[in-house]
Amino acid sequence: MKARIHVYLKPGVLDPQGAAVAGALKNLGFNEVESARQGKLIELDLTGDDADAAKARVEDMCQKLLANPVIENFSIEMA
Amino acid sequence: MKARIHVYLKPGVLDPQGAAVAGALKNLGFNEVESARQGKLIELDLTGDDADAAKARVEDMCQKLLANPVIENFSIEMA
Repeated sequence: MKARIHVYLKPGVLDPQGAAVAGALKNLGFNEVESARQGKLIELDLTGDDADAAKARVEDMCQKLLANPVIENFSIEMA
Repeated sequence: MKARIHVYLKPGVLDPQGAAVAGALKNLGFNEVESARQGKLIELDLTGDDADAAKARVEDMCQKLLANPVIENFSIEMA
């Protein structure tokens, strides 16, 4: 089973990496870019067949290791 | 208009960051994790209304700056 996790900074948290991306894109002539935010994408290969149980475990992984819940949100897609 | 870009390493390219994530999850007792891959998630706010034209521009941004086409693949979602 595969899990795809998106981790992104909460709205309002300063994102210097995203600001650098937006600045670099504007310097390259992409003037339609208003802002950019950068996050993480983590793909896990998991053993087991129970998608609901696996999703609960992945949420636990996010809380404990993959995301910093103080400043980051995460979303999980199972496939 | 928003564009969400996923950038991930091509299959076969060594991913030490993903291996570290998988190792750390196993150390925490998540033994169902077989492997992990880590990529980037970039969200852009764009001006303009033409989604097809915007997507073509975003592909250009990926080729020029956001992804390294030698070792990375990318996918684009417009919203």
